[in-house]
Amino acid sequence: MTNPTAAMLVIGDEILSGRTRDSNMHHLAQELTRIGISLREVRVVADVHDEIVAALRALSPAFTHVFTSGGIGPTHDDITADAVAAALRAKIGQRADAMALLQAHYDRAGLPFNEARQRMARIPEGATLIDNPVSIAPGFTLGNVHVMAGVPNIFQAMVASVLPKLTGGPPLLSQSLRVARGEGEIAGPFGALAAEYPDLSMGSYPFLQNGAHGTNLVIRGTDPARVDEAMVRLTRLFG
Amino acid sequence: MTNPTAAMLVIGDEILSGRTRDSNMHHLAQELTRIGISLREVRVVADVHDEIVAALRALSPAFTHVFTSGGIGPTHDDITADAVAAALRAKIGQRADAMALLQAHYDRAGLPFNEARQRMARIPEGATLIDNPVSIAPGFTLGNVHVMAGVPNIFQAMVASVLPKLTGGPPLLSQSLRVARGEGEIAGPFGALAAEYPDLSMGSYPFLQNGAHGTNLVIRGTDPARVDEAMVRLTRLFG
Repeated sequence: MTNPTAAMLVIGDEILSGRTRDSNMHHLAQELTRIGISLREVRVVADVHDEIVAALRALSPAFTHVFTSGGIGPTHDDITADAVAAALRAKIGQRADAMALLQAHYDRAGLPFNEARQRMARIPEGATLIDNPVSIAPGFTLGNVHVMAGVPNIFQAMVASVLPKLTGGPPLLSQSLRVARGEGEIAGPFGALAAEYPDLSMGSYPFLQNGAHGTNLVIRGTDPARVDEAMVRLTRLFG
Repeated sequence: MTNPTAAMLVIGDEILSGRTRDSNMHHLAQELTRIGISLREVRVVADVHDEIVAALRALSPAFTHVFTSGGIGPTHDDITADAVAAALRAKIGQRADAMALLQAHYDRAGLPFNEARQRMARIPEGATLIDNPVSIAPGFTLGNVHVMAGVPNIFQAMVASVLPKLTGGPPLLSQSLRVARGEGEIAGPFGALAAEYPDLSMGSYPFLQNGAHGTNLVIRGTDPARVDEAMVRLTRLFG
């Protein structure tokens, strides 16, 4: 049984310039792992139409799902919706369902539903809206591309709207062992153990604490019995 | 005058599984911006030879520099050096200069220089070593690809070793204005201002604080006089 795969596309000059530290990647990675969808690649590109289109055309056919973050607000640098439409060759315009949502929201707030705000109703034809309980302006799913906001609390709310609708695989389990030895000391037997379990992924993550070398050894897989068995072997080697 | 460009390739299952939160991207982004090298794209891929090779073959010809992080330790999942050699069609083996560095290090520490540790001396032919003052095992530069460790303090030390050797462009300046209004309110005039300054990059980053919408408006460019001039205009609009 294999797991569905995913890629993420982060759209944002502010990440690439170092102004903002991205946190959406880490959140999505954890959520996908939990439901058994395997995040295989992440790309971060600038707010440039052609770069977004090129990335989507590479990622969309290669993975079960593509998740994007950023660039769906009301300002001139919010170009994601149009780029997604172009990449997937869909038409785009202000859609009545999104217009109605936003109109009602700004009416309630007593704010003008001006031209800039109406930009957020630009949704490709054939797309399904993604619910945004935080600030109403919706994301959308077009084909296998899920388009979400970049602001972390809105991104997280949209992820919570989308993921329950997707079919996951068996959960990706992980167990780890913390060893007070450097990687160079355990690498030989650890590598030999990994070779005996080609169906599992074994990784080692070194750290320095109070000047002493240590390593976290992690075993990942979808079959609980296999992960347990390998973990027993690992603990016998280094525990 | 244009700025040199850069891409980053983060290699690591642990980032994609959500086990570890990457911090190297943010550090590199800030350091490159400081010296006037424009980070244009980041990719995160798993510890899979073919995926690393494919990413390097896409990125290396497209940017002035490529920086990688992760996968250069002594364990079986450390495959970056071999993948870089394959991508750039260089030979690779244990190199005498790296062997000598590591042998001296382990001799001083009274630790065996075993087979796993000798893996860290696998450096492609023609590569220049990158100094690692933290734990000795070097990174390397091959062509325009700078290969560095994933452990954040070692990554940062290697970045500090490499960047002074590179030719930057004019520093990428940035000024920002914090406005207590939502994006939808300022988007129209802000977009019109951005259109008047095609040589500058203007971005808006919304936030919610105590339930109220606000926006950080950021102007970026390399010409200080132009950035100042646009900032005066921006402040007059929304200050």
